[in-house]
Amino acid sequence: MKCRVCGNDAVINLKAYNNALCARDFIAFLENRVLKTIQRYRLIDKDEKPLVAVSGGKDSLSLWYILNRLGFASDGVYIDLSIEGYSSLSLDKVKTMADRIQRRVFIFHLMETLGKGIDKLSRVIKRSTCSACGMIKRYIMNRVCMDRGYNVIITGHNLDDEASALLGNILYWKDEYLWKKGLELKESEGHLSKKVKPLFLCSEREMAAYAILNSIDYIRDECPFSIDAKSLVYKDILNRIEESSPGTKLQFIKGYLKVSRAMKTQRRKDNLDYCAVCGYPASGGICSFCRIMERFGIEGDIRFDEYKPEGLPT
Amino acid sequence: MKCRVCGNDAVINLKAYNNALCARDFIAFLENRVLKTIQRYRLIDKDEKPLVAVSGGKDSLSLWYILNRLGFASDGVYIDLSIEGYSSLSLDKVKTMADRIQRRVFIFHLMETLGKGIDKLSRVIKRSTCSACGMIKRYIMNRVCMDRGYNVIITGHNLDDEASALLGNILYWKDEYLWKKGLELKESEGHLSKKVKPLFLCSEREMAAYAILNSIDYIRDECPFSIDAKSLVYKDILNRIEESSPGTKLQFIKGYLKVSRAMKTQRRKDNLDYCAVCGYPASGGICSFCRIMERFGIEGDIRFDEYKPEGLPT
Repeated sequence: MKCRVCGNDAVINLKAYNNALCARDFIAFLENRVLKTIQRYRLIDKDEKPLVAVSGGKDSLSLWYILNRLGFASDGVYIDLSIEGYSSLSLDKVKTMADRIQRRVFIFHLMETLGKGIDKLSRVIKRSTCSACGMIKRYIMNRVCMDRGYNVIITGHNLDDEASALLGNILYWKDEYLWKKGLELKESEGHLSKKVKPLFLCSEREMAAYAILNSIDYIRDECPFSIDAKSLVYKDILNRIEESSPGTKLQFIKGYLKVSRAMKTQRRKDNLDYCAVCGYPASGGICSFCRIMERFGIEGDIRFDEYKPEGLPT
Repeated sequence: MKCRVCGNDAVINLKAYNNALCARDFIAFLENRVLKTIQRYRLIDKDEKPLVAVSGGKDSLSLWYILNRLGFASDGVYIDLSIEGYSSLSLDKVKTMADRIQRRVFIFHLMETLGKGIDKLSRVIKRSTCSACGMIKRYIMNRVCMDRGYNVIITGHNLDDEASALLGNILYWKDEYLWKKGLELKESEGHLSKKVKPLFLCSEREMAAYAILNSIDYIRDECPFSIDAKSLVYKDILNRIEESSPGTKLQFIKGYLKVSRAMKTQRRKDNLDYCAVCGYPASGGICSFCRIMERFGIEGDIRFDEYKPEGLPT
């Protein structure tokens, strides 16, 4: 198999694009794809200050690396949920990348603020671990973004993540998510930051290849709580279809974007309300995060660490 | 496992309904489900004369049987495509059912009219067998229906057929089919008959059980040309999801109906045009069927046989 660009040995076969590429040309291809996605869907404006939500996994670390290579100077935010044997290891990977690209990262330790890790917390507040984690991450990402003068949160959701979530929403026609959840952007307004996903056209396999080819050291284990059987079933299913019809996942997501735009549904802002305690968006009254703070009798505000690579000016 | 209605031994477990039933109660359940589907979606009006498209398979034969039991007196139409070792066997099953329910059936023999079976014909006109078959069936069903004073064509598409076709249309967002192809009905107008699918909420498994429990002798082999790998992959995939989340297929189809109705798209009639030769609907100029007749230099009209069970008055 030869690289279609330079004729050297190819390292990856991209059936969806009917293409095969060597390491150098694949890296250029993927970075260009991310750039084109950002431009075409207007994900990040030139005057915006982006903040990347980094988990220590291949997608978010690669994305952070790519953005900085593409000239979108971005800092990171990491949320430490105190998952044994997982969180501290992830944080190490994040710091390694921060050093490599010389960008700072804000770190929120759940244990420091609430005295509990996500495991114990979710049992106390009677939510599933994934639901509690999602709620905390959304809140903290938004807080750091707004409090520290950033205006767009960047997450590393890839094509496989988006396609499997979409399939789940469509099988059950979950109206509340289906058409409202744009893949490109939500309006930034009030105290709610815009969120974008520049990897939504890059597959899991492409991202893994990119990380490996760039010697990006990422955490390979899945989160021990991510036994979300359904999304794994959906990913597996979509991979089976992709196998026999390369390009299906891309068409599925791109077609969705077209249709959902045509639906001209109102964005979510309609009922946006603000938390009586922290002043950040809430669906009514006091936000979920502040309710937890109240419940545990925690006073004062939340605190972030800031990790600054050596040699970086203040 | 006990029948939830009468307490006798159950013969089938219906996880999607959280129900288990004995033979008698399952038969009543399924027939009632077809009746409710017809009523709720207004598939057949009381003053309409329905014609069932029968293939010799479990779905169409069971449906024909059920409709006549429910009081919707229906005749049949069978299209003989001269598939070796398949067509004549299917026709036998159709005639057996016609005798059992004492209804007539119109029979179109492709070989008689065009001098070719579907296999050879599709090669000559350079279409896939399935595409040529679909075109001929649509034309002939409509002709028999209109020419013989019927006004609604009934087909035996079941839940699995519809869900897998829908999944295929959604993965590729096939707009031309996606929202326009209502599952319940198309308007009857001009020379185009209405078509309905009263089994669209009954699963393949339920229909097989119904046929067996009623000693309906159907052709078990799939059509030798139906190596439509994709729809089989989709069915298999949906069955996997159904296995872990019973009721998914039903929710998928019912949700679609709700959404597609809300889309308020215009029906197909917009551009309905008529064939210059036969006068039946065509997308423009001469219809595909008449073009084939012309190409082979066949003059005169097409001919149907009529099979009338013994003892049936003329």
